[in-house]
Amino acid sequence: MGGSLGLALRRRGWRVTGIGRNPARLARAKTLRALDETSTDPAAANGADVVALCVPVDQIVPWAKVLKPHLGPRALITDVGSVKGAIVREFDRIFPGDAPAAVGAHPMAGSEKTGVDAARADLYQDATCVLTPGPRTSPGALRRAEAFWRSVGARTLTLTPDVHDRWVALVSHLPHLAADALVLAAGARTRTDRDRDILARVAAGSFRDATRVAGADPALWRAIFTMNDRAVRDALADFRRALDGLAAGRWPRGRLRRAQTLKIEFDERKKP
Amino acid sequence: MGGSLGLALRRRGWRVTGIGRNPARLARAKTLRALDETSTDPAAANGADVVALCVPVDQIVPWAKVLKPHLGPRALITDVGSVKGAIVREFDRIFPGDAPAAVGAHPMAGSEKTGVDAARADLYQDATCVLTPGPRTSPGALRRAEAFWRSVGARTLTLTPDVHDRWVALVSHLPHLAADALVLAAGARTRTDRDRDILARVAAGSFRDATRVAGADPALWRAIFTMNDRAVRDALADFRRALDGLAAGRWPRGRLRRAQTLKIEFDERKKP
Repeated sequence: MGGSLGLALRRRGWRVTGIGRNPARLARAKTLRALDETSTDPAAANGADVVALCVPVDQIVPWAKVLKPHLGPRALITDVGSVKGAIVREFDRIFPGDAPAAVGAHPMAGSEKTGVDAARADLYQDATCVLTPGPRTSPGALRRAEAFWRSVGARTLTLTPDVHDRWVALVSHLPHLAADALVLAAGARTRTDRDRDILARVAAGSFRDATRVAGADPALWRAIFTMNDRAVRDALADFRRALDGLAAGRWPRGRLRRAQTLKIEFDERKKP
Repeated sequence: MGGSLGLALRRRGWRVTGIGRNPARLARAKTLRALDETSTDPAAANGADVVALCVPVDQIVPWAKVLKPHLGPRALITDVGSVKGAIVREFDRIFPGDAPAAVGAHPMAGSEKTGVDAARADLYQDATCVLTPGPRTSPGALRRAEAFWRSVGARTLTLTPDVHDRWVALVSHLPHLAADALVLAAGARTRTDRDRDILARVAAGSFRDATRVAGADPALWRAIFTMNDRAVRDALADFRRALDGLAAGRWPRGRLRRAQTLKIEFDERKKP
C-alpha cells in the first residue's frame, strides 16, 4: 500500500519521505522510485504536510504516537487500515484538536500480494477510499483528506467508523476467513503425494477463485479480526445462518436472485 | 457443456446430433454450429457411436433410461455430471454388460455462464476430465471413454466414483455453498438504496472473487447437493471446523503455510 502510494504521489510532484524500521525495505522502495528519501528516525516527519500511516492495522496507533511529537500544527495524518472504529477512537484521543488533524481512511485497493515489489502507481486509480471522520474531526480536516486521496485517483466515500467496520467485515474480512477455512479444509484432506496430485488436477475455477486471498499473512489478518471482532462475529453469524439454510435444503430463490442482482449491479459499476 | 462439446467434436470431424426436449434451444445450438442435426425423438440416438449426456445431474439417469432401447451394442455412453457415485451405480444397473457400455465422466470445465450461447470450442482443452469406472466397467470401455474425452483436448484422470465425489464436494460444491452464503449474508444487510450504493462501492476484489460462482441456477445446485449429500456434509463439517478455529483466534500458521504451498503448486500446474 505504501509503495503504491509513494509511486502515485511522486508522479504527481509530491516529495515523499519513507519512515520505517527496516532500512533494507526502505532502500528497496527508493530503488523502485517509490520514495525520494528514507529514514529510520521518526523526526524525519518534521515539516510534513501529510503523514500517511501505511503499516499493519495494529501498528497504526503506535506509529501515530511515535510520530506525534515531530508533527507541526498544519500536518494532516491519515492511514490505510482496514479497521476504523478502534483506530479513529485513538486518533481522536491522540490528536484532539485540528492541529495536527487526523482523518482515518481505508483505500479499498490492493491484492493478495504484499511488499514494495508489488507496488503499482495506479493502485488507487478509481478505487473507493472510505474516509471515516470521528466525532471530533472538523469539516476542514475531512476536506483536506478527501483532496489528498482524490489526488492519487481514489473516489472517496464518507462513512462513520462503525458503519465502515460492519460493511468491511461482510465484504472483506468474512471472505478472507472463508477462503482460509476452504484451504484449511482442503489441506486437511491432502496427506499423500497422490492426494496432492488429485487436488492439483480437480481444483477448478470455483475453488481457485474462492481461495485467491487465502493464506495472506496470518499475523496481519489475526490483528484485523481482533480489532474488528464484533463486526466480524456478526458477519460470521449471518454467514453461518445462510450456510445452515442452504445445507438444510432451503434455497431461497427470491433472495438468491436479489443477491445476484446486487452482484450484477456492482459488476456494472466497476467497469471503467 | 453440451454446446461446447458439440463445437469441439464437429471441429474434429464428428457428426453431432443433438437430442433434447426444447426445439428452440436445439435450433439455437445448430445455428451456432454446435450441432449437425437436432431431434426431440430419442430414437435419433440410433446408430450413435458415443452418447454424451449433457444434462443437469438429476436428468442423467432418466435420459439414460429413455435412450437405452435405441442404442446399439457398440455404443459408448458417457456424461458430464459433477456427481458420480449415484449416477455410476445406476449406469451399472441400466447397462450391466459392455454392450452398450457406460462410463461416468466429469469434465472439470465450464463457468458460471450457462446456455449454448456461452459455448466455446476450446472449453475442454487441457481441462481435467475425471473418469469414474464402476465395478462392472470393462478396461476396454474405460479406454474408449479416455480416447473420446482426450479427443476434445481433456486430460483424463481415473478415480472411483466415491473418491471423485469426496474431492469434488471439497473443491467445487463447498465453494459454491460458501459463495451463495456470502451473497445471501450481504443481501440480508442491503435493504435501502443507500445500502446498495455502499455495497457496490466497498465490495472489493476479495468479495467479488469469492462470490463469482454465486447465484448459479439454484435448482441445479440443489440437485447436486442432494445427490452428493454425504460428501458435501463431510466437507461442510471440515469447513465449519476450520472456520470455528479461525474465529476463536486459532490461526494454524504451519497449516496455512502448507495450504498455501498446495495452492501455489496447482497454480503452477495450471499454467499452459
